[in-house]
Parts: sequence; structure tokens; C-alpha cells
Amino acid sequence: MKKTTLLINCPDRKGIIATVTNFILAKKGNTIYIEQHVDRELKEFFMRLECEFDEDEEKLALFKESFTTHVAENYNMHWEMYNAEKKPRMALFVSKYNHCLYDILGRYASGELKVHIPIIISNHEDLKPIADAFDIPFKYIPVTTDTKRQAETQQIELLKEYKIDFIVLARYMQIISSDFIDQFPYKIINIHRSFLPAFPGTKPYHSAYERGVKIIGATSHYVTSDPEGGPIIEQEIARVSHIHNADDFMLKGRDLEKIVLSRAIKHHLERKLLVYNNKTVVFS
Amino acid sequence: MKKTTLLINCPDRKGIIATVTNFILAKKGNTIYIEQHVDRELKEFFMRLECEFDEDEEKLALFKESFTTHVAENYNMHWEMYNAEKKPRMALFVSKYNHCLYDILGRYASGELKVHIPIIISNHEDLKPIADAFDIPFKYIPVTTDTKRQAETQQIELLKEYKIDFIVLARYMQIISSDFIDQFPYKIINIHRSFLPAFPGTKPYHSAYERGVKIIGATSHYVTSDPEGGPIIEQEIARVSHIHNADDFMLKGRDLEKIVLSRAIKHHLERKLLVYNNKTVVFS
Amino acid sequence: MKKTTLLINCPDRKGIIATVTNFILAKKGNTIYIEQHVDRELKEFFMRLECEFDEDEEKLALFKESFTTHVAENYNMHWEMYNAEKKPRMALFVSKYNHCLYDILGRYASGELKVHIPIIISNHEDLKPIADAFDIPFKYIPVTTDTKRQAETQQIELLKEYKIDFIVLARYMQIISSDFIDQFPYKIINIHRSFLPAFPGTKPYHSAYERGVKIIGATSHYVTSDPEGGPIIEQEIARVSHIHNADDFMLKGRDLEKIVLSRAIKHHLERKLLVYNNKTVVFS
Amino acid sequence: MKKTTLLINCPDRKGIIATVTNFILAKKGNTIYIEQHVDRELKEFFMRLECEFDEDEEKLALFKESFTTHVAENYNMHWEMYNAEKKPRMALFVSKYNHCLYDILGRYASGELKVHIPIIISNHEDLKPIADAFDIPFKYIPVTTDTKRQAETQQIELLKEYKIDFIVLARYMQIISSDFIDQFPYKIINIHRSFLPAFPGTKPYHSAYERGVKIIGATSHYVTSDPEGGPIIEQEIARVSHIHNADDFMLKGRDLEKIVLSRAIKHHLERKLLVYNNKTVVFS
Repeated sequence: MKKTTLLINCPDRKGIIATVTNFILAKKGNTIYIEQHVDRELKEFFMRLECEFDEDEEKLALFKESFTTHVAENYNMHWEMYNAEKKPRMALFVSKYNHCLYDILGRYASGELKVHIPIIISNHEDLKPIADAFDIPFKYIPVTTDTKRQAETQQIELLKEYKIDFIVLARYMQIISSDFIDQFPYKIINIHRSFLPAFPGTKPYHSAYERGVKIIGATSHYVTSDPEGGPIIEQEIARVSHIHNADDFMLKGRDLEKIVLSRAIKHHLERKLLVYNNKTVVFS
Repeated sequence: MKKTTLLINCPDRKGIIATVTNFILAKKGNTIYIEQHVDRELKEFFMRLECEFDEDEEKLALFKESFTTHVAENYNMHWEMYNAEKKPRMALFVSKYNHCLYDILGRYASGELKVHIPIIISNHEDLKPIADAFDIPFKYIPVTTDTKRQAETQQIELLKEYKIDFIVLARYMQIISSDFIDQFPYKIINIHRSFLPAFPGTKPYHSAYERGVKIIGATSHYVTSDPEGGPIIEQEIARVSHIHNADDFMLKGRDLEKIVLSRAIKHHLERKLLVYNNKTVVFS
Repeated sequence: MKKTTLLINCPDRKGIIATVTNFILAKKGNTIYIEQHVDRELKEFFMRLECEFDEDEEKLALFKESFTTHVAENYNMHWEMYNAEKKPRMALFVSKYNHCLYDILGRYASGELKVHIPIIISNHEDLKPIADAFDIPFKYIPVTTDTKRQAETQQIELLKEYKIDFIVLARYMQIISSDFIDQFPYKIINIHRSFLPAFPGTKPYHSAYERGVKIIGATSHYVTSDPEGGPIIEQEIARVSHIHNADDFMLKGRDLEKIVLSRAIKHHLERKLLVYNNKTVVFS
Repeated sequence: MKKTTLLINCPDRKGIIATVTNFILAKKGNTIYIEQHVDRELKEFFMRLECEFDEDEEKLALFKESFTTHVAENYNMHWEMYNAEKKPRMALFVSKYNHCLYDILGRYASGELKVHIPIIISNHEDLKPIADAFDIPFKYIPVTTDTKRQAETQQIELLKEYKIDFIVLARYMQIISSDFIDQFPYKIINIHRSFLPAFPGTKPYHSAYERGVKIIGATSHYVTSDPEGGPIIEQEIARVSHIHNADDFMLKGRDLEKIVLSRAIKHHLERKLLVYNNKTVVFS
């Protein structure tokens, strides 16, 4: 039995659910879980299905072709189909902060994340010992204003060489260029150290401290060419008070960053994320 | 267009979703929202559908009959169908505490709760002025150990007279008898002042204080013959510390009770609750 | 025994705590609770003391004079002393939304808020029946662009007539002028429908929905001439997801607004708030 | 300048704060932070002071002697004084689960925890590679019913040899004997996988799942001879729903366990914990 995940969105219309589930049934598949959403304002329909087929790869390819012709085109669907048993390949980008890296690698090593991590890329050498301790290749690619374009070329080559499916910026302290981003649409996940849209930019914990907020946050989002403007995947908050200074905010924020980033990675891995209109649908 | 809500549960089997959505389509209905859940351990299937039919009451009755014969019986379904535009009728039971009553009536008066409240029943007269201020009939039925059975008979008569669909115990400080409960299966909602199953029984805030917990809670649940043992609908918590004594716990708890009870009422009103195996499925 | 609350702030220096507690002891007072904070960056010292004196009003006046000369002036203190048994007088300003009003009045009626509410002022007549139900004088003062100055003059006269200590804007939908605010420095509490500084301005729930946030919030703050820029007193959040639209945000937000505003009122009533550098110290 | 932390508790009486702060001032110390609590029911006074002395070790010893005679004995105080600059020595006990171990060592390696970890003790060899990766000695001491007493003797010898100040059971799956516990009163911190007092004992996540709770929790506590009955240090919760099974509870619980345990360790390290009447006072 092959487990597959279907992600579909299309203009909302009568009968989509019946059509899709029938088609799967007709192809001897079993829909074991369905989750659906309709954006009433935009009149857009979203669906995630988990199915089982007792067919081989070849027949699945035929299914796809057939689904495109008989269903997807009729409904003007944007759709994707994933082999639920195949682990995606994730690249980590880091700089000097190690807490998100430790957290992700700890989850990875304990089997919590169903993913391959074939490579860690960094613009600093500081975190190499951690990569070594977890036996993961560490590629040091320094980045300066002058070498940025060249560095990105080198990074993209590595990503291709290692057949990377998606990228996680685990506190990578460099802006990614639009050219780079365009090659990985909604495949780069970043963690921002604030409750967006509050406190975009650098030094968000200091800005939060200056404003005297009583709650701080962290936000994971897909990277688009608009910095801090990409579709939000997950947010979490922590309480602070007058007794905490900007350093305390940062320390508390680290726990938020770890949790919010790891949740985003899991959602992405489990194919629970659909992007539309610069927002995410996060299936449960 | 008639909006209806279908709640279904049955043993899990291949093709249920396709069958149901097809049947609705065939009957000229439109499934506008579907939510589904499968309990893998118990192999039980749960589904909630929001549908629109452009048919009149009579034709809906025919639909029901037809659905029973052609679908429900085949799948051994337990199912219910609700007119989504008809407001249910809710009775409030209260004693002396007024915060939940104020909260519910405030939400009711501001149109937040899509419900009728034809009657408030109490074993004390204290809260009558509040019922009066909100123009809701208040029935005072005192309860003593000796008069309990008789009082319940009187209550049940009132519930029938007022065509009550479900009951909310808004800090009603009396145990309801099994006989009473049996007449309203999963139609009585209670609020318990702790994070169940911690601190069942009376004086939960005092017990929580004695134990030195750092978090307190409140739990709304359907009333069954097992006190505090019924299916949990919703829970919420608040942080406490050594600076709070049992009275502070109680005061903080009031906000929890209000929120947890009002959320349970809303879930019930929106037909989002299915009970199975003494647990609730709470559709979103 | 007279219970009093002292709120002190001054430049940080050695020996302040010892000096103050000794002085109170020497005057036959007993410090029953002390809470202290130091802002290390600004080198400012903050302290809240609860004391008991077995003296009459006249002797307390002498204490104040003596404290000023012997302690406060030496340390360059800003300080205030409150009779902890005297309930402050609070005016409510409302417009058309009733949920915060119901919530505050419910808490007031049940004795949860140790305050007098001698008057409710509104620029609309809609909420008069609620004021009537709770037996509180309701003053209707319409406000248009042309009559604004005149309306504020009328409001201020009422506030003086009713000897109001502080004002709560319980969803009052008018901007208060700087002239008005200057007469009540840090004595006007507002509730804003977002997690400030995110989404200032009008329609914050719609903006939050547009941005696709996963968490919404509410903020209570003292009103200053900078709209939404005053010292934050309290914030709270709630989770949202793609299934919620802007109306759902608003509905969920109402519970946040009620809780955040009532907490701010309680902090203010219990003299737990000190403002410094446009931030609040919130003693526990 | 020597930074020291004083923790004091004694029967509540007039003038304690003034006496203590004066005494410190007289000894040329500066009280830079004070936090105080009074348990009104038990009439017990608690205080934590951070002080600076520009004196050497020898003079501090004299201070202690003098404080005992002139202050502590008069007030019948229980008190402790810590050198705030000296890092305590913590032993980790683990079994097979690695998530808490990874979390603690990640925080340790990144400098977040001001502590020495001279040794990790385990009844299984599984986690040795992690200890190796972080360069911490790993002692494997197998435990069977027959060898338990002997194993504990060996553990205690190690703890003495490594001059251990306190012990953290980071998912150590063995019951510690009363004899062992008596040698480390309020110096052993455990993490329990539920919101105590709900679901004590083994398999708490399964019990929580069976009961159908909507919120799960984790609790860190000092170990006493009453299993799961020791003073609670910290608790945290996470939301669950019908879509989560017992394994999901466990997975979500891991994040709670990590956070709740690390917070307890920090509170202990910063000398913010006082135990009284089987509860903790947790200074902020």
C-alpha cells in the first residue's frame, strides 16, 4: 500500500469533494483523511487528502496523468501529489547562533523529524563542531558584500548537488537575494524574532523592550522578496514584564524561536501547508 | 437555500466520504464544508458536513428518509441533521454565583450567542434581579434533600413546557440525579472549577492551593451519571504563583469558568460536538 | 489600623530600602509587603509598599509632611500615598459596542472590582438600557467634528462634578484631545484591539486578517497624546487560523478586550502601576 | 565587589525588612534587589536579597557569623547565603529518552545555563554517544531490582567524588530510594509528564488520552519520598484535540518536558526557590 498526500486548490465550485473522492475510489484508492477549507471572500477551495493505493510507482504515474485530464483541468486546479513515505531533503543555513541548530539536530537525531539533512551551510565557521558532533557535512561559504552573488551561486550549486527539497534558515544572518528566492518558491523557511508584523527588521528584541510590551513573540514564515513580509506559518508568544531587559527578552525568545521554527518544519514536512494570497492554510 | 448541518459517525470503511457527498449532490444539495476524523484505534469514522439545499421542509423530510435507507443503514451510521438557521432553546440553571450568568447573558444580549434563553431556573432567589434586568423568566425552585425528587420533576416539567433543547449549569450547586440526566443525554453542559481530572469534587481551588500548583484550570463537560467524569468539551488554564492564595485562585478561576463555559455553549450551538467513547470530537 | 499603599520612584542609590522601611518603623508603621524594581539602564529605583498605621487621618498627614522632608527630598523621590481602603471613582466612556461594558458592570455588580462607578458617558444613546439595568447614571453627550471641543468641556465638567479619579474608555470610539488628556495624566485607560505595536489605527482585526497572522491580541494602555503610543499596561493573545475570517477575529478579540481591560482596571485600582519612560512597572 | 544572594524564611514579624537591610548597610553591603513574600495563613515570611559587598571571603565569613548572632537568631530564621558568581555543579541522571538531555546540553553548550555538568549517570548505555559529543563523562550504572541498593551506593559515591550540588533527573526511569533522597533534600529535580496532580504514575500520556482531555501538561518538582508528591517548581501545558492520539500527546509533551525542566533548573541555579510546607516560593 502506497500512502500519498494530495494538496489541491482551485476556484470554489459545487461538487469538488464528491468528484475527487469518487475519482480516487474509482482508481482503487482509499481516501483515509480529508481536510478542506474554503476562503469565502476569495471563493477559493483548498483540500488535503491522505490516500492509500495498492499500486506500484508506474500505476501512480498513470493516476496522475489521468487525474490531470479528468479532474484537475475541469476545475482549474493547482495540485500536488506527494509520496508520504519518502523523506524530504532539508538544508540548514546557519551563522553564529546555535540554539535553533541544536534544537533541530536534537529532534532529528531522536527521530522526531522525518527528514534527511544532507548538509549545513554557513557563512561562519563557528558552528562546525556541532555539525561534526551530529555527523552532518558542514559547508563554510563566507559572504561579504562583494562576494554575495558568487556565494549564492556556490550555495545553489550545493543545494542542487545534494538534491535539496527545501531550506531552513536557522538564524542565518544574511539577506537572501530575490534571484535565489525565485528558485525556491515557498521552499525557504525563516524564523523571525518577533510577533510579526510588529518589530520587523534587525534588533526586534531591543525594539520590543523599548516599546515596553508585555508579550514577545516569534514568527516562522516562507521567505519571499519582501523581507519579513512572506506568508506566516506559525507564531508563538511568551510573557515578559518590567523585570526583564532586552537580554532577558532575547533569552526567552530563544525558546520561542526553537519551537516556532520546528513546528513550521513539521508542517512543511507533513505537507500540511498551502500558500495562497500570501497567507498559509495550515491543515491540522 | 436551506442550510443544514449533518453529524455522522459509523465504523470506518472505504468510500464513506465519496458516498455521502455524492448522495447530497444527487439530491441537488451542495456540500459547502466538510470536516472529518477517524479514530484509528477504535476504527470509528466521524464527519460533519455543512450543506445547502434549495428545497423546502417537505423535500428535506424526504431527503432524510432516503438518506436513511440508501446510505445510513448500509454504513451502520449514527447520524443527525440540523437546520442551521433554527436557534436552539437553552435553559440556564444557576444558584448564587453570578459571574457565569452575567457573562452568558451579556453575550446573549449582544447577539454573540445564536440561541434562545426562554428560562432561568434556580434553587435560590439571589440572582432573580439579573434575570429581570435581562427580561428572562426566572423560576425559583428550592431544593432540599427531602424535596429533591419533587424539585427535579418540577424542573423537567418546565423544560418540557418551554421546549428546551439543552441545559447549561452555570454554577448550579446541586447534583443532578441520574434519572434527570437520562432524559437529556449529552444535553446538559456543566462547568467544573478545575483542570479535570485534577481536583474533582467540591472546593477544587482550595485543593489546588494546598497542592501548590503553578497553573489552575476550568473544564466544561457533558453531565453523565459519573460526576466530573463526563466527556470533556473544553479546558483552559491560568498561571498562578506563591503570591496567590485560594481566594485569588477563585477570582482568577472565574474568568476561566466564563470563557470555558461560553466556548462549550458555542460548540454545542454550532453542532460541532460529537460524543463517542466518553470523549468529544470537537470540529473546528 | 489604616492600610496605606506607597508608590515611590527615584534615582537608584544605596540604602533606599533600609531608609524607607526604617522611617516607617520609626513612625510606628508596619511594612507588610514590599515590592521593588530597579531599571539598571536608566538607574531608576521603583518601590511599592503596603503599610499599616494605627493612626488617624491627622497623624497620617503629619507622616506625609515628615516623609517629604526627611526622606523624599533627600532621594529626589517622586512618590504617592494612597488610602488602601478608599475606593477610587471611575468613569466609563462608551459608544456602541457593549461587550466591555457588560463585562465591567458584571464584575462591578459581583463585587470583583473595588471601585465606584458614578457615571457612564457616551456619544450614543444605544447603551443606556444597560446603564439603567445596572442603575448607573448615563450621560449622553453627542460628539461631532464641530461640537467636539464643547462636548469635551461638558465631559470634563461632569468628571469634576462626580469627583472622578480615573477614566476607562470601554470601546469609546472617539479620539480624546490633548487638552483633555493633559488634565488626566496616566488616568485614562484605553483598550486597543490589537497586539500593539502591530496594527495600530482603525480596523486592526481586518489588517490582522489581511496579513494572515496566526495569533491576534489586545492591548490596554494609558492614553497619551500619541494615539496607541501610550504606556502598555497589559496584553493578551488568542490563536487564530486560516479557518477564521475578519469577523471571527473580531469575535475572538472581544474576549481578549474584556480580559485585558479588566486586568488593567484592577492593576490601576490596586495601585500596582507606575509609569516611567513611557513604560509601566506592574507590581504583582 | 562580591555578589551574594540571601534566602531567608522565618515567622512573620514587624520590622524584618528594615532590620535585615539595615544590618547589610551597616556592614558596608548594598542591597541591590529585594523580593519578599508573606504567607498570611501560615504567618511565614520569605525574602530573597541580592547584595554586593566589597569585602573578601574572610570578611564575608565574619558577616555570616555576625548575621547569625545579631539577626537570624532573634527572628528564628532559616537562611542561606550563596556566592552568586560561583557556578553550582549539576549531575544529570538519564535512561533512554534523549530529548531532555539534548535540550539541557544544548543550553549548557550555548552558555544559557550558568552551571557545571561534571557527570552524566545512566542505567543504560544508549545515550553515551550524546555525552561523548558534548565531552561530558558518562557513567553507566545498570540497575536491577537486586542491584538497586548497590547501584545507589555507587551513584552517591560518584556524586560525592564529583562534588555535585544538585541532581536533575532528565527522564531517568528509576524510582530513587528514600535513603538516597534524604541525602539530597530539595536538591533532586524531576520532570513528570503530566499536569500534576492529574495523571501521576507511569503512562501519563496514555491516561490523558483515555480521559479525553483537551490540554496536556508537564510538571517539574523536587523529589521527596512521596512519588509525584514533592513541591511543584514549574508547570506548562499544550493544547490537544481529538485528532491527537497518545503518541501525539507524547510528542507534544516532549516540548513541554524540555521547557519545564529547563525552567526549573534555571530557577534553582539562580537561587530563586524556597521550599516551605511542601510548596515552592519562586521569586521572579
